[in-house]
Amino acid sequence: MSTELKGAPVAAAINERSQAELQRLIARGITPTLAIVRAGEREDDLAYENGAVKRCEKVGVAVRRMVLPEDASQDELQKAIAELNSERSVHGVLLLMPLPKQLDGEAARNALSPEKDVDGITDGSLAGVFTGSGRGFTPCTAQACIEILDHYGIDCKGKRAVVIGRSLVVGKPVSILLMAKNATVTVCHTKTVNMPSLTKSAEIIIAAAGKAKAIGAQYLSENQTVIDVGINFSEGAMCGDVDFEAARNIVSAITPVPGGVGTVTTSVLISHVVEAANRQNS
Amino acid sequence: MSTELKGAPVAAAINERSQAELQRLIARGITPTLAIVRAGEREDDLAYENGAVKRCEKVGVAVRRMVLPEDASQDELQKAIAELNSERSVHGVLLLMPLPKQLDGEAARNALSPEKDVDGITDGSLAGVFTGSGRGFTPCTAQACIEILDHYGIDCKGKRAVVIGRSLVVGKPVSILLMAKNATVTVCHTKTVNMPSLTKSAEIIIAAAGKAKAIGAQYLSENQTVIDVGINFSEGAMCGDVDFEAARNIVSAITPVPGGVGTVTTSVLISHVVEAANRQNS
Repeated sequence: MSTELKGAPVAAAINERSQAELQRLIARGITPTLAIVRAGEREDDLAYENGAVKRCEKVGVAVRRMVLPEDASQDELQKAIAELNSERSVHGVLLLMPLPKQLDGEAARNALSPEKDVDGITDGSLAGVFTGSGRGFTPCTAQACIEILDHYGIDCKGKRAVVIGRSLVVGKPVSILLMAKNATVTVCHTKTVNMPSLTKSAEIIIAAAGKAKAIGAQYLSENQTVIDVGINFSEGAMCGDVDFEAARNIVSAITPVPGGVGTVTTSVLISHVVEAANRQNS
Repeated sequence: MSTELKGAPVAAAINERSQAELQRLIARGITPTLAIVRAGEREDDLAYENGAVKRCEKVGVAVRRMVLPEDASQDELQKAIAELNSERSVHGVLLLMPLPKQLDGEAARNALSPEKDVDGITDGSLAGVFTGSGRGFTPCTAQACIEILDHYGIDCKGKRAVVIGRSLVVGKPVSILLMAKNATVTVCHTKTVNMPSLTKSAEIIIAAAGKAKAIGAQYLSENQTVIDVGINFSEGAMCGDVDFEAARNIVSAITPVPGGVGTVTTSVLISHVVEAANRQNS
């Protein structure tokens, strides 16, 4: 049976690291504040948002929700972002993606002030990931994958890692972060031929395909660590991109869904909001 | 015997595409102008620079050389960049990298005006590559690899590509560009374990290790296309990262060094200078 790499202890360790800084800010009369911008009512947006709100409030980070209708115009969205950019009491802005089809995500993400970009979606933050300069903020979900590996003592150096998915939110940044940790990284996607032959020989798998239980037994082998980034809904229940029941009898270690990456992501987000508040007030 | 993927026909095709735009600019009294900034006298910098100057002059792009001593200070370098940024008659700036050790390359590259960043070294250009937004300019050498594959009709879709080297100048950007062309990309580097097992199963190899003839027969197999990015000097002669004599009896197609990627790189650079002059005067 696989080891379950639960998110809660990782999240707790990150929160503990954030707390000292958070308390110093609060003592100075500064309450680190996150604004969440959402357009529409997508199930996975809501799941992430509700989790984030609950966790922020628990640790002492304030949250402002800004909800736009699903048919919001680009102008409405840009105005909302501009308002939050200029609002001094807001330190971080989380823009839930993907946006509804009529909206230009590219324009929206770059409208955000780089110093408030706590989810690492602006060009400045992404360049920071790509170049390894450490500027800006790392995309939270990608960073959460790395935090889990670090927390459980899984050394990446010289390991073969396969990332499934090449999104800007997870796949691409996590592949660069793994490379910086000296893993040999392969990125698979929908056009990859014979994916199981690649995933089976990997020591670390990051599943970010966005497809419920798509990664089954034929993709897996012993001695693997599997980080499941997926947040999908199948028959009313939340599940990952990996077929957990199949995987737990094969691989060495796997993150559960829920209770894995998502749990850590919100802690990373919180740590970024605290860091942003700190940078904006230093 | 392998097919030789010579750079000259690829370069000629790129130059032909640049010429129409170049002539339109010259007719308006605008001579696209490239400034090359070099610190010191490194052999491979000089090889690249001399090639670039010769080719620029041949097609009608003006070149200004700005040479700093090898022991130049950061201040001298930043002043040189600032001067070129504000000089309206300079449309593109090429900063030869890596810089001597005492200089901060990170600060230098981001001091450059994004619109003059014809070699794609600023955060803005690198974010453009990473996100696929098309903003900024692609790093020339990385783009040259793609131009060669395209010119010789080598379809990347679904192919396994191995990039050897994870530099910001070649390895990382070319891996993202290959991914955008639907290749399944693995990036190998100095910490990779058992590299031959990975390179042997690849259909496309991009060698950017920066080590003379490091990629020998044990890394190669039939039906591979090898793009050799290396510019090294061994026993007084220029050579690539691939052991060409060994490779030509094994692989399906390979770029020579010299006469391969380097030849195409300068044409890409020229096309970027012309494009920059066009954008700055439209």
